[in-house]
Amino acid sequence: MNKVAIVGVGQTKFDRRPDASIREIAFEAFKEALEDAGIMRGEIEASVVCSATHYDKQRTPAGVIAEYLGLNPQPTYNVDAVCASSGVGVRNAWALINSGLHGIVAVIGFQKMTELKSDEVQEVMGRSGDVMWESPLGPTMPAYFATYANAHMHRYGTTEEQLAKVAVKNHFYGVKNPKAMFQKEIAVEDVLKSRPIATPLKQHDCCANSDGAAVLILANEEKARKITDTPVWVAGLGLASSPMSLTSRGTSLTSFTCSVEAAKQAYQMAGVTPEDIDVAEVHDCFTITEIINYEDLGFCERGMGGKFVEEGQTYIDGKIPVNVDGGLLAKGHPVGATGASQLRTLVQQLRGEAGQTQVKGEVALAHNLGGIGMYCAVTILKR
Amino acid sequence: MNKVAIVGVGQTKFDRRPDASIREIAFEAFKEALEDAGIMRGEIEASVVCSATHYDKQRTPAGVIAEYLGLNPQPTYNVDAVCASSGVGVRNAWALINSGLHGIVAVIGFQKMTELKSDEVQEVMGRSGDVMWESPLGPTMPAYFATYANAHMHRYGTTEEQLAKVAVKNHFYGVKNPKAMFQKEIAVEDVLKSRPIATPLKQHDCCANSDGAAVLILANEEKARKITDTPVWVAGLGLASSPMSLTSRGTSLTSFTCSVEAAKQAYQMAGVTPEDIDVAEVHDCFTITEIINYEDLGFCERGMGGKFVEEGQTYIDGKIPVNVDGGLLAKGHPVGATGASQLRTLVQQLRGEAGQTQVKGEVALAHNLGGIGMYCAVTILKR
Repeated sequence: MNKVAIVGVGQTKFDRRPDASIREIAFEAFKEALEDAGIMRGEIEASVVCSATHYDKQRTPAGVIAEYLGLNPQPTYNVDAVCASSGVGVRNAWALINSGLHGIVAVIGFQKMTELKSDEVQEVMGRSGDVMWESPLGPTMPAYFATYANAHMHRYGTTEEQLAKVAVKNHFYGVKNPKAMFQKEIAVEDVLKSRPIATPLKQHDCCANSDGAAVLILANEEKARKITDTPVWVAGLGLASSPMSLTSRGTSLTSFTCSVEAAKQAYQMAGVTPEDIDVAEVHDCFTITEIINYEDLGFCERGMGGKFVEEGQTYIDGKIPVNVDGGLLAKGHPVGATGASQLRTLVQQLRGEAGQTQVKGEVALAHNLGGIGMYCAVTILKR
Repeated sequence: MNKVAIVGVGQTKFDRRPDASIREIAFEAFKEALEDAGIMRGEIEASVVCSATHYDKQRTPAGVIAEYLGLNPQPTYNVDAVCASSGVGVRNAWALINSGLHGIVAVIGFQKMTELKSDEVQEVMGRSGDVMWESPLGPTMPAYFATYANAHMHRYGTTEEQLAKVAVKNHFYGVKNPKAMFQKEIAVEDVLKSRPIATPLKQHDCCANSDGAAVLILANEEKARKITDTPVWVAGLGLASSPMSLTSRGTSLTSFTCSVEAAKQAYQMAGVTPEDIDVAEVHDCFTITEIINYEDLGFCERGMGGKFVEEGQTYIDGKIPVNVDGGLLAKGHPVGATGASQLRTLVQQLRGEAGQTQVKGEVALAHNLGGIGMYCAVTILKR
């Protein structure tokens, strides 16, 4: 296999953006990524446009975005893996480059979620579950993840305080990220006292619906070396699926089997183990998700995720720093943009451009989970 | 580049299917494709699930389909390029195989459109245009293509009778295809007298909303040669985009610039010219589209598409047989399935399994157009 690098990154602030359309927020992040790479729009040979459907009336948004960004007549691809859309998009871009079809590809992740009312968003999100057998019975996204939290607490003794500590850590780092939606530290007490959403999850256990975009520019080895002195290589890729319906997941509500499988593939392809990962971004749509991810990715023993965060092992001075850009909980989660935003953070880390949250290291991992935990994309980067 | 072959094909009859869910119609075509390839479900390493959104409440359908087809934990990809979804899906599958990520990939195209009322379908379809600047003004899919028809008639003198002859030809061949929705020959008079839809297009100038699925199984060279003695090779691929909004298309309403560009790419990659194509499937969502496609693909001179069909050049005994399985006009157009159905027909042609519509030849071309003509995927197959 040939080498593929990320050579440019860009991101809007994740926030409420009533002032801008989807094409405009995509443009903001795209422009920043082009400037970061130091290339011109005309050098982009294809675009992979990543977003989750039904938040917007616009169907097949790659069409309007390719036009607005001046990318016609180049090929453009729509990718939708719900919350994992741009994690999957990177894999698609990697394959398109590696197969020789394209030399430089832009992965454009975006979402506008705040135009819908909160209950409309919940309805749309619920339909990323099985609409024939499950979502008509009422489960919303928080309810699905509350089920996982209850199962984990029941099986392993994980506590609400441990869940809260994920939110505390991620808000601690969010303050240091100017592109994060929330810019305020919170304490365990704040989480525990926040409004109940779906027991045991409270408001601060849940990420926020947001607007935003993130863009990555990928290139083959020859072009990457011409474009930049600091290419960040895509060293490992993993992608897997889990059953959509909970009834088919058997006893695995305390683990995402797709995460375990995707991580295995990515570690193998990159030739590394969990111990080699210097910094990670994992999908913390809810606090429980980050705890399960620690275990699924092999950062700690099965069932020990709660204790792992409690011990501070995922802070910068711990065993493995996780979500030191604030994660979804503090940054916000415009779903189509999240996977690309994770990789942007890691590219900056590996380039040594992460400022006050800089971690020393050469190997980074991004974990991007889709929907109710039925898709997982894991990407490993090396300097 | 390594070689990739289509080694198995399957398709449901395109029809109204109130009896079956999307997962069930996908299964029907998948089962037939597995049997055609003579492989087991467990050999499929990844699935590319192609459909257009918003016809169904189910978001991100790859999840439910992968589960129902027993494809967990393998990776699954959602691809949406509206009417060109499975044409683009084949390109994605080709790249995933060629890059070495997967050895055998199923491309699963499906759509269920008949559960929505006709006006609901028109509203959904309209939103594959630009929802900020165009579709709120009312253009439906027939209105967009009627605009192209009027422009073509004005510029080149194309006549309503010539448009009608496309429908007559495709219904003539549809009768010979047991999987086609319409099984009745029609005459020019029938087309001209049919109900006005959007002047100059009448009912028989328009394809029908349908339910159905089509599946292709692709494999790398090593696996393909083990699976079958009659692999059909993907020799050329082209993909391009046009501006989404008509105002940005300037004077090109009589041509799809994305078709011209995609065809150029595919001919170059396959090392062939239009004269080398022995049989073609082109996207005849409306009669005018087939006429424009003849010109965009280089089958005839610019502006001569109407005359080309009038002369019978696209019948089996003409210069280049086009849509001899009935095309979208007679087969029906369950949008996500159409690109895969076109390639299924061509695989059967190149294998010599096309029965009474068999064309003699070794090189075949599929042209799959998305939305209002803003994406085009061209695929060239060789025996």
